[in-house]
Amino acid sequence: MSDARFDVVGIGNAIVDVLSHEDDAFLTRHGMTKGTMALIDADAADKLYDDMGAGIECSGGSAANTIAGLASLGGRGAFIGKVKDDGLGKVFHHDIEAIGVHFPTSAATDGLSTARCLIHVTPDAERTMNTFLGACTDLGPDDVDEDVVRASSVTYLEGYLWDKEDAKAAFVKAAELAHDAGREVSLSLSDPFCVGRHRESFLDLVENHVDILFANEDEIKALYEVEDFDAALQQVRGHCKIAALTRGAKGSVVINGDEIHIVDCDPVDHVADTTGAGDAYAAGFLFGYTNGHADDLAHCAKIGNIAAAEIISHFGARPETPLNEVVAAKLG
Amino acid sequence: MSDARFDVVGIGNAIVDVLSHEDDAFLTRHGMTKGTMALIDADAADKLYDDMGAGIECSGGSAANTIAGLASLGGRGAFIGKVKDDGLGKVFHHDIEAIGVHFPTSAATDGLSTARCLIHVTPDAERTMNTFLGACTDLGPDDVDEDVVRASSVTYLEGYLWDKEDAKAAFVKAAELAHDAGREVSLSLSDPFCVGRHRESFLDLVENHVDILFANEDEIKALYEVEDFDAALQQVRGHCKIAALTRGAKGSVVINGDEIHIVDCDPVDHVADTTGAGDAYAAGFLFGYTNGHADDLAHCAKIGNIAAAEIISHFGARPETPLNEVVAAKLG
Repeated sequence: MSDARFDVVGIGNAIVDVLSHEDDAFLTRHGMTKGTMALIDADAADKLYDDMGAGIECSGGSAANTIAGLASLGGRGAFIGKVKDDGLGKVFHHDIEAIGVHFPTSAATDGLSTARCLIHVTPDAERTMNTFLGACTDLGPDDVDEDVVRASSVTYLEGYLWDKEDAKAAFVKAAELAHDAGREVSLSLSDPFCVGRHRESFLDLVENHVDILFANEDEIKALYEVEDFDAALQQVRGHCKIAALTRGAKGSVVINGDEIHIVDCDPVDHVADTTGAGDAYAAGFLFGYTNGHADDLAHCAKIGNIAAAEIISHFGARPETPLNEVVAAKLG
Repeated sequence: MSDARFDVVGIGNAIVDVLSHEDDAFLTRHGMTKGTMALIDADAADKLYDDMGAGIECSGGSAANTIAGLASLGGRGAFIGKVKDDGLGKVFHHDIEAIGVHFPTSAATDGLSTARCLIHVTPDAERTMNTFLGACTDLGPDDVDEDVVRASSVTYLEGYLWDKEDAKAAFVKAAELAHDAGREVSLSLSDPFCVGRHRESFLDLVENHVDILFANEDEIKALYEVEDFDAALQQVRGHCKIAALTRGAKGSVVINGDEIHIVDCDPVDHVADTTGAGDAYAAGFLFGYTNGHADDLAHCAKIGNIAAAEIISHFGARPETPLNEVVAAKLG
């Protein structure tokens, strides 16, 4: 794919994360379901922020995290997502360009403020998220930079986009543009509740539009409404070109027609925070896939596992150590 | 396979187990490699027995454990293996017939005494074994009861047999008899060191004589001399009809041509002793396979996982609770 200007363009919500450590009682008090992402409005976001402990702020967003990971691995990334021209919007813009990612989307000058995701990390390293989508809800088909999509080997879409009609239209436009240009389309299912909200649409997408599907165990089980992983595996086989399924400590399973790989996770001494593990896995997998290893999916999965191991070994969803160095140390 | 008189005939070493709890220093002092089985002679067996703590004695042997598990599940089993007409031999004979297993092999009246396996269980629930094969070394082709093999849906062979020439000849004779009668042949690789001792022979067997292969992760990696599970998986695919690969807490993987199942293990509150886990898995799998579920290998694997979970939840390699009751409670 040497004619491509970018390895991957991600399209997703442009969000600034605010992370805090909380105990389980905090989740209970606020009626949260551990491990999931809920959408909240501006008022609820303000109230929740007031009740949170001291936070760490950093640029986030699922697809944006993946593109940041790709850049850290040495890949060529672009990102399409909507911020407002406010303080957090400037932080997001600065951060993503600072890591070498092309970011062509113009900031909104009015309307809702830049999105934020309030992330509560409990002592078991699980993360529970409440997202105020803000300016992201203005993302629409006009924001899809056609030249960038056509110039990218893979267009990567986060399932969270499916929560808003305009973003969904942007999603479909991008997928069609990519395929018309002979490129590939990848989707992350994002979250089991997100899958539950849009199951029929996602099934249609997976069947008809997606070349590379990313999902964790809970998400793929939710998609096919089955109780165990093997049942989901039997369903997804043959329904998309490639499926890369992550299983936490059980590693990942990659299927591609009759081909299947069961790849162990990269060992981690201490899991500090699982936020962004799936995003990092997708970054590593797609980096390998678009950089000479499309015929060795087990290798792509290994890079994904190594990237995910780096991310979960510390607080926050972006790498602390350049991922190209981590991968070089592990795979030579 | 309703014309079969037995679901499975096992052929293996007829051994009485002597189990004791020991610490890691005991293993170091005796130069043992944790988790493996070593062969010792009569003198070494006597010395080691003197140095062991108080033991529990019970009938064992890998294939015999599998047939005992099959019987406990309600299956129809037979066992071929050699004991001497001495005290331990009488114990073995009594125990295996008491659970309803047909045991046609005559006891030796002279030669080495009945085999014993000295099993040391360390606090991490791993077992390290030293086996004095004794009378088992007299097992030969004449001990293979032709009518029993022909009357069994599956002939199940333990890899340990390959350690002695006469037993190996018995092994090959049984496999050929079974196939000539239109039956199937199953092999357990037994132990990574056993695989290392006979790698070329096992590769030939798997390729040409085995319909259903059982191996744990270390064994299948040893067979193909590869470093990770996925690499072994790629090798074994297409080289035998069915492979059922056990991965401890990661559950099991069953392949059958293009078909593949990744089946989670059955949860266990406390792992007391992993002795016999693989034997019990094979019992459950083969019980399902020979009792109406040959077209649902994931179900066979689930029965295997449930049987293994019962065995590792207590000390010793034979079930404490009838396995048919355990399976009925779990699968209905």
